[in-house]
Amino acid sequence: MERRSTDPRPDDGGTADAVTAADTVEGVGELATLARILPRLPRGDHTLLGPGDDAAVVAAPDARFVVTTDLMVHGPDFRRAWSTPHDLGWKAAASNLADVAAMGARPTALVVALAVPGDTPVAELEAFADGLREGCAVMAPGAGVVGGDLSVSPTFTVAVTAFGDLEGRAPVRRDGARPGDVVAVSGALGRSARGLDLLFRLGVDHEGRPDASAAAALRARDADVGWHLAPTPPVADGRAAAIAGATAMLDLSDGLALDAGRVARAGDVVVDLTAAALGDDVRLSLSGGEDHSLFATFPPGVPLPGGFRAVGTVRDTAGGAPRVTLDGSDLGEAGGWDPYRLWSGGQG
Amino acid sequence: MERRSTDPRPDDGGTADAVTAADTVEGVGELATLARILPRLPRGDHTLLGPGDDAAVVAAPDARFVVTTDLMVHGPDFRRAWSTPHDLGWKAAASNLADVAAMGARPTALVVALAVPGDTPVAELEAFADGLREGCAVMAPGAGVVGGDLSVSPTFTVAVTAFGDLEGRAPVRRDGARPGDVVAVSGALGRSARGLDLLFRLGVDHEGRPDASAAAALRARDADVGWHLAPTPPVADGRAAAIAGATAMLDLSDGLALDAGRVARAGDVVVDLTAAALGDDVRLSLSGGEDHSLFATFPPGVPLPGGFRAVGTVRDTAGGAPRVTLDGSDLGEAGGWDPYRLWSGGQG
Repeated sequence: MERRSTDPRPDDGGTADAVTAADTVEGVGELATLARILPRLPRGDHTLLGPGDDAAVVAAPDARFVVTTDLMVHGPDFRRAWSTPHDLGWKAAASNLADVAAMGARPTALVVALAVPGDTPVAELEAFADGLREGCAVMAPGAGVVGGDLSVSPTFTVAVTAFGDLEGRAPVRRDGARPGDVVAVSGALGRSARGLDLLFRLGVDHEGRPDASAAAALRARDADVGWHLAPTPPVADGRAAAIAGATAMLDLSDGLALDAGRVARAGDVVVDLTAAALGDDVRLSLSGGEDHSLFATFPPGVPLPGGFRAVGTVRDTAGGAPRVTLDGSDLGEAGGWDPYRLWSGGQG
Repeated sequence: MERRSTDPRPDDGGTADAVTAADTVEGVGELATLARILPRLPRGDHTLLGPGDDAAVVAAPDARFVVTTDLMVHGPDFRRAWSTPHDLGWKAAASNLADVAAMGARPTALVVALAVPGDTPVAELEAFADGLREGCAVMAPGAGVVGGDLSVSPTFTVAVTAFGDLEGRAPVRRDGARPGDVVAVSGALGRSARGLDLLFRLGVDHEGRPDASAAAALRARDADVGWHLAPTPPVADGRAAAIAGATAMLDLSDGLALDAGRVARAGDVVVDLTAAALGDDVRLSLSGGEDHSLFATFPPGVPLPGGFRAVGTVRDTAGGAPRVTLDGSDLGEAGGWDPYRLWSGGQG
C-alpha cells in the first residue's frame, strides 16, 4: 500500500482531504475494509457458499450458467467528479446485469473486484457497496454478491463478473434475426448520451474541467444526468423476451445504429428502423450509447413483452450486404459510442 | 484512449519504444486487438457458448459452480521489469486455478479482463494470452477462457474470474479440520518467496531499481526466480484431496503459518506443525507466500493423495485459543506475506 509521489489523485471534490488516514483503505487495512463492505452486499437466492473461503459456490439449476465480465476504469469510463461511489456501484451492476439479461437469462450472482488508491476513504467503498446492493435489488432482486477482491492501485478500477440462469431455455444470441421479424427495444434510447452531453457542457468549472458541485447542481435540474451516471436498464425484460421467443437480442451499449449493425451482420440480414418510432431526437436515439437498453427481434405476430416497443423490421439482404436502414435509407456505421475517448478535458 | 502526460509508464526494458504506434493497443484498436488475442485462448471442454456475444454460457454438470476472482495490479502485485507478459498470463491462471482447486473442484473455465496503457504493444497481450493458455493446459487441461474485456488504463491491471465443477461433491471449506486429522501440504513451500528475495537483492540495477536484464540473468541461474514469476501449483491435487475425504483445504497464498492459522480459527482447533517436515529452511517454509500450494487436513489413516505429504496434526484446543504450533511451541501470526508492500524500491 505504499504511496508514491507520482500517484494520480482524482479530483473528487476534496472528500479525501477531509478524512484522517485511519478512515482510508490504507489506514484501515484490506481485511478490515472488507469486513465493513461485505455486510452491505446482498446474499442472493442462488448463493450456496458466500464470501470467506477460497471461492464461492453458486447454484446453476439447469446445469449451465451465463457469465459476463466488464471493467470500469477511472478516466476512460468515469470521472470521480461526476460519479459518486454509489453511482459506480449501481452502474457496475447495471452494465453487467444488462449483459446477462441480453442472453435471456435471470441474473443470479456477481463477483466484484476493486482496485483503488490507498487513500480512498473506506466510506466511499461502503457507498459503492450500497449502490451495488440497491442496484441489484431494483434491477435483479435475488441476485447476490458472492465474492470479490480488493487491491490497491493508483487507478480506481472496478471489475465485475455477473452470472445468470437460463432456466432451461436456449441463450438468445445476437445472430438469430430472421427476415420478417419485428425489431423492438426496451428501455431508453439516447438518454444516457444526453446526460453526458450536459455534463460535458455544464458539469465543468470555468477551465472546462469536470466539477463536482456543477455536476450535482446539473443533476438536480435534469434527470438524464443521473440516468447517465446510474442508469436502470430493463433487466427483467431480457428473460421476458426469451420466454416470448426473441430470435436475437443484445444490450445497447454502443448506440442503436452500431448495435443494430451487429445484429444485421451476425444474422446476415437487413435491419430496417423506423424514424417515427425513435422519439423526438432520432440522431441521439441512433447514436447514443450506455443506456444498456435491450434490442431484440421477435417473430411476426408475437405480442411484445414487458417494455418492448417496435422500432423496425428485419428483411432479407436480397444478395446485398447486411446493413441497417432508417426509413429505407442506408445508415453508415458512424455514430457509434466512444465519448470519453473524444473528450480532451481534465481527468476529474 | 487519450494519453495524459501524467500517465505512469512502466520501465519494461524499452520494448514499448521499439514498436510503432500501429503495433500498440491504441494504434490497433480494441476490437482488432481482441481479434488477435481470442484465437490464442483455450476453448475448453465446458464451454457451451464462447466469446463474441453479450455473455458466455458454461456447463455446470452438478447444477452448481465454484467461482473465485482475483486482481493483479502493476506495482503492488508485479513489476514489469521482472514479469514477462507470458508470466503474467501464467500466474493469473495459476492463482485463480489454485483457488478453485482449494474447494476440491475441477477448473472448468475462466474470464479475463485486462486494463492496459494504450501504448502497450499488442504482442505483449498475445504473449499474455499464450501464458494463460499454456498455464491452463499444464495446470487445468480442459479449462477454457470463455470471455473477457479489454480497457485502457494508466495502470496495467489483470482481473481473472475462474470457475470449477464440484462433480457432485461438497465443497471443501476451510472450517472442517477436526482433532486427530493429519495436516498435509501439496506443492512447494517458500520457493516463491526465495525467488522474490533473489529478485529484490539481485534483480535490480546499481540504484536498486528492478532491472529486466539482471532479472533475466538471475532467472537463468536459479529456477526459484522463474517459479516466483510463474508458479505451477498442484491444481489437480485439489480434486484428489476432495475425493480422498479432505476435511478442510485452502490455497497457500500468504504463507503456511498464516494460512494454517486461518484453518485453526475457522475450525476452532490447534494445528501442530512438525519442523522436520518443513524442509531445510523452516522459517521460509512457514512465512513464504505465493506458492499457491494446497494445505489440507485429512482424517487419520487416509492414504494421502497425489503430491500431499504430512506436515503435522490437528488437535483440540482444550479450551484454549485456536492456534498454530511448531513442534509444540506456539507460533505467532507474524511472518505473513506482504512483500511488495514492504518494498520501497522503484516501480519497475
